[in-house]
Amino acid sequence: MSQLEKHTLLFTEYLAANPFHGKPETLYEPMNYIMELGGKRIRPALVLLAAESAGGNAEAVLPLALGIETFHNFSLLHDDIMDAAPLRRGKPTVHKKWNEAAAILAGDNMLVEATRLMAVHGDREGHILEFFLQTAREVCEGQQLDMDFQQRDDVSEAEYLEMIRLKTAVLLGCAMYAGAVAVGAAEANAAKMYDFAIDAGMGFQLQDDLLDTFGDPAFTGKQAGGDILAGKKTLLWIEMWANANQEERTAIEQLMADNDEARKVTGIRELMTLTGAEARVRELSESYFQEAASLLQELDSEGLNMAGPSELLAFLRGRQH
Amino acid sequence: MSQLEKHTLLFTEYLAANPFHGKPETLYEPMNYIMELGGKRIRPALVLLAAESAGGNAEAVLPLALGIETFHNFSLLHDDIMDAAPLRRGKPTVHKKWNEAAAILAGDNMLVEATRLMAVHGDREGHILEFFLQTAREVCEGQQLDMDFQQRDDVSEAEYLEMIRLKTAVLLGCAMYAGAVAVGAAEANAAKMYDFAIDAGMGFQLQDDLLDTFGDPAFTGKQAGGDILAGKKTLLWIEMWANANQEERTAIEQLMADNDEARKVTGIRELMTLTGAEARVRELSESYFQEAASLLQELDSEGLNMAGPSELLAFLRGRQH
Repeated sequence: MSQLEKHTLLFTEYLAANPFHGKPETLYEPMNYIMELGGKRIRPALVLLAAESAGGNAEAVLPLALGIETFHNFSLLHDDIMDAAPLRRGKPTVHKKWNEAAAILAGDNMLVEATRLMAVHGDREGHILEFFLQTAREVCEGQQLDMDFQQRDDVSEAEYLEMIRLKTAVLLGCAMYAGAVAVGAAEANAAKMYDFAIDAGMGFQLQDDLLDTFGDPAFTGKQAGGDILAGKKTLLWIEMWANANQEERTAIEQLMADNDEARKVTGIRELMTLTGAEARVRELSESYFQEAASLLQELDSEGLNMAGPSELLAFLRGRQH
Repeated sequence: MSQLEKHTLLFTEYLAANPFHGKPETLYEPMNYIMELGGKRIRPALVLLAAESAGGNAEAVLPLALGIETFHNFSLLHDDIMDAAPLRRGKPTVHKKWNEAAAILAGDNMLVEATRLMAVHGDREGHILEFFLQTAREVCEGQQLDMDFQQRDDVSEAEYLEMIRLKTAVLLGCAMYAGAVAVGAAEANAAKMYDFAIDAGMGFQLQDDLLDTFGDPAFTGKQAGGDILAGKKTLLWIEMWANANQEERTAIEQLMADNDEARKVTGIRELMTLTGAEARVRELSESYFQEAASLLQELDSEGLNMAGPSELLAFLRGRQH
């Protein structure tokens, strides 16, 4: 069993043994429902891996891993309402299975519970809690930017990268920071682990966009070109539009108005390649992963055991779904 | 100027000088909008009054007062979405003025910001933060109970009282606890101030229901019988239904199906009096206020200066809107 599998298993067992408890059940049932839908559990694995890399014990930081995963699921729950998403991991979303009010409230209580876990199980000085709250704020900012960008046609590459840093990467960073600081890592090492996770997270998110559009549905399990059909302005879209000449822009507009879904996806995908958008996003994703790898080497040469995070990075880099 | 007016002014000046700052503005603007809509500012006043009663300085706990008021406004913001309320204090609600996604997210970020204020400005041991997070959890539970109760016909008086304790009273309690503990009050005194605020809050909420149905619109500024028209199951409704005989229940059902709003309000109001519901709710409200008053006397006899909280209690008890 790989390091990563071992840690994921450790966390999922802890999660199964520690469901949310409280009354009324109508509040706590949706909270447990979304937590049990599954997922890759990358964020809690990062908490455990960071603790071990810093010379500590993975078991000791399980409550913090639960806090981070609870926060992540809170954000998924509320994002699903905002996106009016009917399904998550093939199951009805909370606002569909129950109703919107229940989904808002279950999310609110998950945010409270996540914060409580970080406060009670963090360091005595409160650095972890403060870092977590700053991260929570940034995730809200990232989600708002994402919504704002859907209404705009002039989003720059730099703006988009800052949005995914806030919306996705900072929580991965916070996971590693928390795991490391909780076991007494030096601030400089915790900060470097944070930077590693940010870079890995940026690479991860950009790769996610690439897989959605160019991935093999047999691997991804998702509809090919789901982002294109949803009209989502990913970086692929932004780069395509920015680089397209007048003729290509006309073609894009015609394709987006096309009711034939297969033709729309194929056509837009070709234009994403033709305009250099695909190559640019691949280049960016790869450069983030490379940056993450060189931070790992630095940490390694400073005497930390980075075997676990290194394995995670290889997993993220190589995944096809 | 009364103690209460002095403290309310102190807080509103602090609030005006400390708006939320951050980017994107689309996230922070709705947060400031709801905070600036006004209100009685009873919760922040309680923080300041508790600190002074415990021998401390009101200025020192202004950030905690802001944290409590920010939490209160977060809960209003999300409740307004759940209730699909178009107006708050005569102005468009956030989800109407912007949109629902913006309202969910602004609320989330206010919850984060409220927690940050309580964490950074609370006591070093984290008692205030822990108490606040427990309170936040209870407020979520109370709101869920309120929603559940709207679907039921058999809610008991005890269940209803527990619901308003969670939804409304515990935050008033937390406000006083935080203000007292922050300036070093003995745990026993802080606990007694909490109990005082719980009782005052229960009396306050029951009186609120009475004013909505029996209050003079010239004073309340609200539509007379708004709860009746909205079909809200307040304690007045619950007691009326529980005490009504078969004939009266038929009358209630006919009135609720009546399209003539004035006739509906007048008829139901009469039945609330006739069945003894009004008298019972007045009795309960008064007994909570009396319990609060006797806790004040206890605190007073233990050497704390309760002039401020006493004035607040008189204000709550005597208000007509």
